[in-house]
Amino acid sequence: MTDERLVYKSGDFVPESEASLSIFDSGVGSGHMVFEVTRTFNHEPFRLTGPKSHLERLHASLRCAQIDSGMTPEELEAATFETIERNLHHFGPDDDFWINHYISNGTEGRPSVLIYVRSLAGVLAERAHFYDEGLDAVIPTQQSVPARLIDPKIKNTSRLYYRIADVQAKQVSPDAWALLTDEDGFITEGTGSNFMMIKDGVLISPEPRNILLGITRGGIIDVAERIGVPFEERNIEPYDVINADEAFFSATSVVMLPVRTVNGHPLSAEPPGPVYLRLREGFSEMVGFDFVSQARRYAGMLNREPAAV
Amino acid sequence: MTDERLVYKSGDFVPESEASLSIFDSGVGSGHMVFEVTRTFNHEPFRLTGPKSHLERLHASLRCAQIDSGMTPEELEAATFETIERNLHHFGPDDDFWINHYISNGTEGRPSVLIYVRSLAGVLAERAHFYDEGLDAVIPTQQSVPARLIDPKIKNTSRLYYRIADVQAKQVSPDAWALLTDEDGFITEGTGSNFMMIKDGVLISPEPRNILLGITRGGIIDVAERIGVPFEERNIEPYDVINADEAFFSATSVVMLPVRTVNGHPLSAEPPGPVYLRLREGFSEMVGFDFVSQARRYAGMLNREPAAV
Amino acid sequence: MTDERLVYKSGDFVPESEASLSIFDSGVGSGHMVFEVTRTFNHEPFRLTGPKSHLERLHASLRCAQIDSGMTPEELEAATFETIERNLHHFGPDDDFWINHYISNGTEGRPSVLIYVRSLAGVLAERAHFYDEGLDAVIPTQQSVPARLIDPKIKNTSRLYYRIADVQAKQVSPDAWALLTDEDGFITEGTGSNFMMIKDGVLISPEPRNILLGITRGGIIDVAERIGVPFEERNIEPYDVINADEAFFSATSVVMLPVRTVNGHPLSAEPPGPVYLRLREGFSEMVGFDFVSQARRYAGMLNREPAAV
Amino acid sequence: MTDERLVYKSGDFVPESEASLSIFDSGVGSGHMVFEVTRTFNHEPFRLTGPKSHLERLHASLRCAQIDSGMTPEELEAATFETIERNLHHFGPDDDFWINHYISNGTEGRPSVLIYVRSLAGVLAERAHFYDEGLDAVIPTQQSVPARLIDPKIKNTSRLYYRIADVQAKQVSPDAWALLTDEDGFITEGTGSNFMMIKDGVLISPEPRNILLGITRGGIIDVAERIGVPFEERNIEPYDVINADEAFFSATSVVMLPVRTVNGHPLSAEPPGPVYLRLREGFSEMVGFDFVSQARRYAGMLNREPAAV
Amino acid sequence: MTDERLVYKSGDFVPESEASLSIFDSGVGSGHMVFEVTRTFNHEPFRLTGPKSHLERLHASLRCAQIDSGMTPEELEAATFETIERNLHHFGPDDDFWINHYISNGTEGRPSVLIYVRSLAGVLAERAHFYDEGLDAVIPTQQSVPARLIDPKIKNTSRLYYRIADVQAKQVSPDAWALLTDEDGFITEGTGSNFMMIKDGVLISPEPRNILLGITRGGIIDVAERIGVPFEERNIEPYDVINADEAFFSATSVVMLPVRTVNGHPLSAEPPGPVYLRLREGFSEMVGFDFVSQARRYAGMLNREPAAV
Amino acid sequence: MTDERLVYKSGDFVPESEASLSIFDSGVGSGHMVFEVTRTFNHEPFRLTGPKSHLERLHASLRCAQIDSGMTPEELEAATFETIERNLHHFGPDDDFWINHYISNGTEGRPSVLIYVRSLAGVLAERAHFYDEGLDAVIPTQQSVPARLIDPKIKNTSRLYYRIADVQAKQVSPDAWALLTDEDGFITEGTGSNFMMIKDGVLISPEPRNILLGITRGGIIDVAERIGVPFEERNIEPYDVINADEAFFSATSVVMLPVRTVNGHPLSAEPPGPVYLRLREGFSEMVGFDFVSQARRYAGMLNREPAAV
Repeated sequence: MTDERLVYKSGDFVPESEASLSIFDSGVGSGHMVFEVTRTFNHEPFRLTGPKSHLERLHASLRCAQIDSGMTPEELEAATFETIERNLHHFGPDDDFWINHYISNGTEGRPSVLIYVRSLAGVLAERAHFYDEGLDAVIPTQQSVPARLIDPKIKNTSRLYYRIADVQAKQVSPDAWALLTDEDGFITEGTGSNFMMIKDGVLISPEPRNILLGITRGGIIDVAERIGVPFEERNIEPYDVINADEAFFSATSVVMLPVRTVNGHPLSAEPPGPVYLRLREGFSEMVGFDFVSQARRYAGMLNREPAAV
Repeated sequence: MTDERLVYKSGDFVPESEASLSIFDSGVGSGHMVFEVTRTFNHEPFRLTGPKSHLERLHASLRCAQIDSGMTPEELEAATFETIERNLHHFGPDDDFWINHYISNGTEGRPSVLIYVRSLAGVLAERAHFYDEGLDAVIPTQQSVPARLIDPKIKNTSRLYYRIADVQAKQVSPDAWALLTDEDGFITEGTGSNFMMIKDGVLISPEPRNILLGITRGGIIDVAERIGVPFEERNIEPYDVINADEAFFSATSVVMLPVRTVNGHPLSAEPPGPVYLRLREGFSEMVGFDFVSQARRYAGMLNREPAAV
Repeated sequence: MTDERLVYKSGDFVPESEASLSIFDSGVGSGHMVFEVTRTFNHEPFRLTGPKSHLERLHASLRCAQIDSGMTPEELEAATFETIERNLHHFGPDDDFWINHYISNGTEGRPSVLIYVRSLAGVLAERAHFYDEGLDAVIPTQQSVPARLIDPKIKNTSRLYYRIADVQAKQVSPDAWALLTDEDGFITEGTGSNFMMIKDGVLISPEPRNILLGITRGGIIDVAERIGVPFEERNIEPYDVINADEAFFSATSVVMLPVRTVNGHPLSAEPPGPVYLRLREGFSEMVGFDFVSQARRYAGMLNREPAAV
Repeated sequence: MTDERLVYKSGDFVPESEASLSIFDSGVGSGHMVFEVTRTFNHEPFRLTGPKSHLERLHASLRCAQIDSGMTPEELEAATFETIERNLHHFGPDDDFWINHYISNGTEGRPSVLIYVRSLAGVLAERAHFYDEGLDAVIPTQQSVPARLIDPKIKNTSRLYYRIADVQAKQVSPDAWALLTDEDGFITEGTGSNFMMIKDGVLISPEPRNILLGITRGGIIDVAERIGVPFEERNIEPYDVINADEAFFSATSVVMLPVRTVNGHPLSAEPPGPVYLRLREGFSEMVGFDFVSQARRYAGMLNREPAAV
Repeated sequence: MTDERLVYKSGDFVPESEASLSIFDSGVGSGHMVFEVTRTFNHEPFRLTGPKSHLERLHASLRCAQIDSGMTPEELEAATFETIERNLHHFGPDDDFWINHYISNGTEGRPSVLIYVRSLAGVLAERAHFYDEGLDAVIPTQQSVPARLIDPKIKNTSRLYYRIADVQAKQVSPDAWALLTDEDGFITEGTGSNFMMIKDGVLISPEPRNILLGITRGGIIDVAERIGVPFEERNIEPYDVINADEAFFSATSVVMLPVRTVNGHPLSAEPPGPVYLRLREGFSEMVGFDFVSQARRYAGMLNREPAAV
Repeated sequence: MTDERLVYKSGDFVPESEASLSIFDSGVGSGHMVFEVTRTFNHEPFRLTGPKSHLERLHASLRCAQIDSGMTPEELEAATFETIERNLHHFGPDDDFWINHYISNGTEGRPSVLIYVRSLAGVLAERAHFYDEGLDAVIPTQQSVPARLIDPKIKNTSRLYYRIADVQAKQVSPDAWALLTDEDGFITEGTGSNFMMIKDGVLISPEPRNILLGITRGGIIDVAERIGVPFEERNIEPYDVINADEAFFSATSVVMLPVRTVNGHPLSAEPPGPVYLRLREGFSEMVGFDFVSQARRYAGMLNREPAAV
């Protein structure tokens, strides 16, 4: 019996080393594919099912992208849980993982449905130091493709512009994350993350029109309501970000990472800022799990406890 | 010895059934991949190398998409010819094929370079009847993503919008090809093809700004010059197309297919129109090969010779 | 004495068969004309006068379109009521009618003011079956002209683009109503109707910037408040509509008709959906009249009572 | 027998006083109507038929506006000539006239086709003094509706924005003609006329994308070629117009009128400028008729011959 | 000892007649300079320091404009107060003044920081009659430069377009103030002032995206809250302004001046309208000073007390 | 007698140390000022007067910016030559200089007209090494303000966005010059310079719509014609620049400097490229002066002669 993880692939479970997409798959050749990335906290998938969940969004993506998975929502959910179950023994009791869904129209009328799990250890170890130090946000020349052309609400794989934005941001600072804007110059999102800022005690998100409605973002909004941080969706300009009190990116893996500079300007509150910290701690409480400590543990950082926390 | 075709994959030759991209490949998950599709005429690749060739364009795509193939132009060319050579015995003396290149940044810093060949028989058989009947061009709601956001000159795989445009066009007519427009309402291209029209004897192409500069399109422009059809690049509006004399799509596989209606309006010259025919015949002469007869042969159409030709 | 209906025409009452506009009228040659269409419920005009009424909007339209009717608001109101009175005997006690106003700068400095009534029987009979079956909403290629160019708040007759949008929608489905979008891809309105959707129990309308502020729409918003359905004005994207729970068009004649599909995707609640029904019934209560039964009666549909109601 | 002029109306000839459109005509209520206005020189219609003629453009307009006249091109041409013939005796040997076509989808599936003639005397008398004095061109706040929304190449009656532009221009100067711009700020056209300018001896027209392709404009371009004035189509900015040497509006009735100021800035050559005059005289020669003298005669201006001519 | 006012200039105090910027200053040659204009009420500077003050905004401007003043906020504040103090004896007990800050990167790496005071008497005397008569608002052809290109929230000196807008407005009426719009046709601001309107008792401001966030505007919003006038930020179209009940411009010097016409259309409430008056009086109370009487006094208007106040 | 240079200031000649603009000058506070910068070659001003000269452009700028210099063209020319004459003795026989004009509406109705000369030695010494090494062109996030908002053809001082673009470019490389794009993503110009590229032997400039029509640029176009380099004005995309053979910036001081990288991609021809060199040498011949050697002399570079020249 092999130790290899198993991947659900259009009805079968195959070893991960064999899990790949044909070069003739329409998802590969056209970026005509939708996906979801869910993470677990303490082995518990975060908002995988139910309202405002990853699977609900996946079905919305399929509908709008004109992809037919050939599976009912119930079948997809069952396959997901079976994938988790078959792989759970690969992860230690303190280890969490990603659950990935990739669905395309496949080849010759047969859809491709991939479900697989991956360890979070690597990515969390790499990013753990940002929890205290913060990231450099850089607004690149590359703009977001607006929703009227390719809707970012459809979580899809036609994302060449994300990669170009990343390269441009890294040219300014190797620690930079790209912070995209739309045609009107309003802030949209990161390249695979959402962005929010805090001004005068209010948590502010871009209006939803040109962004992915992140599941983690939804969780943070719930936390804000729970702990009494007022929340608003508003057009955000670079002017607003440069003059913000605090700011952060949110993403499935790390939940939320603070921003320390925007286009080279330090924000007024040094990261991690006070409201950011309250939200992050509120999130830990909501999911009943200290994901920051986990990340630090992955990074071997526990012994050099940062002063600020 | 196996009968299977071989695929060049990042330095190795592997059987086609094993030729696939890892689900972790950045080209798969982000549409961050460039490609080329070259065809042969009588086993001779059309403009594969040299100025204004597929490989020249491939290098321009790599540069602009920030992808490093890890190969010199010479190495890529050599690998391409070796791939052809190793597979040539799979094709009969009257059969032609496609040569495909797909290149991404791959996984873990190791680029993916795929080169493979495919038979043209299937696609040509399917489309052969359009040479005489013509296609229905339908302008869908989905617009082209403009070059300032994702440049179509970079032949890339972030093309979700092509597939949505196709679905919209097919809702109007099952024989329709989508004819895209840009934000200003000007005609751009098909979804994987170029578009040109003829008015008062002049061959007219959209201005190059929001289109792929097709290699076949380049060949047709050369033919036009050779046979004395004046050529212009101009902003083309739906008004112009509806009132055109003739129109056609050009693509690597079929070279050029005439249009019979635009948004339901028949063009004034029934397909195949006279200038279209002169260009198509000129193309056959240029490449020294009658690709229309080949396609009809694939379609088993030779015995019912159409009157018009 | 003739049985013919009388039309108010710039100060006179003339028989309907003589009611026409000169071919030299500026309203005819330039689309430089504003209008209103009011309906009665049980012979009672709905919001003809007073705040947020048809006549208030008519005066706003005149002002912004630079048209001088040559009449005071009081004179226009009086002429309207006289037109109703002179024609009332043409309608049975169970019959309702339209009151139309058309005003242009006319010819040679003399404005054209037309007021006339028309029976609702025909249009209601034709559309009655949609109350239960729902309409197909199709987003056409033709976009709304934005307010900065021709403001749809000015109810005017320069509406060529409405007709082109209709033709495009009918090419996809004969039962389709066109659902327009603006330059940003946001939903605006139908071609002579407003559009609203329901998601998670909330009634959502497009932001008012590129739509006509329908009087019926205003009535529905009042009903929503009265019966406790939360209401929001928001940017609505095709993504939102495709994933809506319910949706409907509102218009003077039919008040509100449910949507069954959007670009071919069935909405999650089959029409007539629950919130739609509550609003429709609330509207009936507000105006003290069961307009749905009336329409079914016109359509001879009363004997085959639909199961769902 | 009456002296009244006869109007062709959907198959019949009716007296002009009875020539009108029903208030229920779709062309009246929706601006969904196309038209043409042709003038005669010495009783000879200018480019009524043939290539680049009024009737050719009329058919292009019908096609793009989705209007079915119910007549073949031959029938329409015959009806036009019969209309001229039946009315010719109304005009003196020195008098010229307009030929008008208005076509809509009409009412209840029956198209409206109107053809009628009108004397040019009034409009020419009124405008004759501009031949020497020139007009004031004023760029109003109201912009052109771009072709992607309502194509000005379709000569249609949805032109509310023309009238608003006119009012704005007249607020600056009572002798002003509005000179419209598009979304990019480029000059498009007048409100029912084309605009051209002269710089360094070159005749320059806006690029054709957002303008009506005027038949008179086409005639002037032919004259320019004939007499050796170089001609270019180019994006024209207000900067270019303000710094132009000469400029003029062209229109069916007056052929071409010079511009004396742009937004209050006098052009460097006082009207009528030298190139303008050469073109105007070339046009007279081409049509074999001195239309300027005719207009002056209508205006009773012949006895006060202007010095400059 | 001279009677001349002293100007703070990059560390020194110099007589006003010597206060100038070198022709080599980058602020002069590039419009790369930010500024603030504060006024006093009864010698008390209005919101000079603290949150939402002129100096807070000045620092935001410096940051976003990439200008380094070379001074800490504390130093700048101290220099400001010293400038006031050194000049206070120039103003009578009833006289108020402006405090101006102009900061650029200067020449040869040495920033220019100018702080000076100016009497308000002249500008107030000139504008006092508008408090009762109201201004003519004219929407010019010149549009606002949007925030994504030059952010108006950065109070900067690259304002050529303001001056062109002013000239255009004055061409329509000599008493006109230009009322700018953005690319979408929404109202933005005056040329050095903010604009607000009142409809159905609600105070409405443009959304903040393309306007300067005026300090006086902030004060008026506070007054509205204090006296119970509901306030909203909303997209405002010319349609809304033409159909508004009241409207006004706000600016540092005059605080707020009512509008009497918009593009020639009188507003429904004659100026000064009732809500405008309540806000103006509330502002006087808030600052403890009757600035309207002061302006009238400057204008020698006290003896002809207007009836309405 | 002082050694100081004299500045023409609104009618007088004043010492340069006293040459400044009042802080109340409208040019200072509003960026409402136009200017010209002319250079001499061997003491001969380049295209100062005549057609397509600096002074001709200055008058076009004044006209479009609504500035009245209060001087006739002849007076302005005379004042310019007098300024040169009075300062000529300050420059050695081998030294060249700049002639600057700055004109605003000034203060209190009195225009400001400044004319002064400055040595070119400093700026040329600093930039001389770029003649061989080439510059890094970086496309910043900051876009050009399009001509419809502030026309760059008007050489004006509202250029805040130039400075922001410069800062962004320098964040990527200290040797970078910003290469601006417009809203469509097309290349426009540098921040105070023009940009041209060479592809397949053709000299290509952006279309003139969103650029300053540089006088030096005009000279280079003349050289191209003279020496037989084909020239085209075309929309240029970043794709084109990255794949160009050569590229250069042109500016009054240095005439033309080659580009070595674009967004980090080296151009295919190492600077100075062959066509660039032919143009630069042709320019030297046209003006009869070797400005490159002069710059190298200023930089003390003559003793280390670069190999390539």
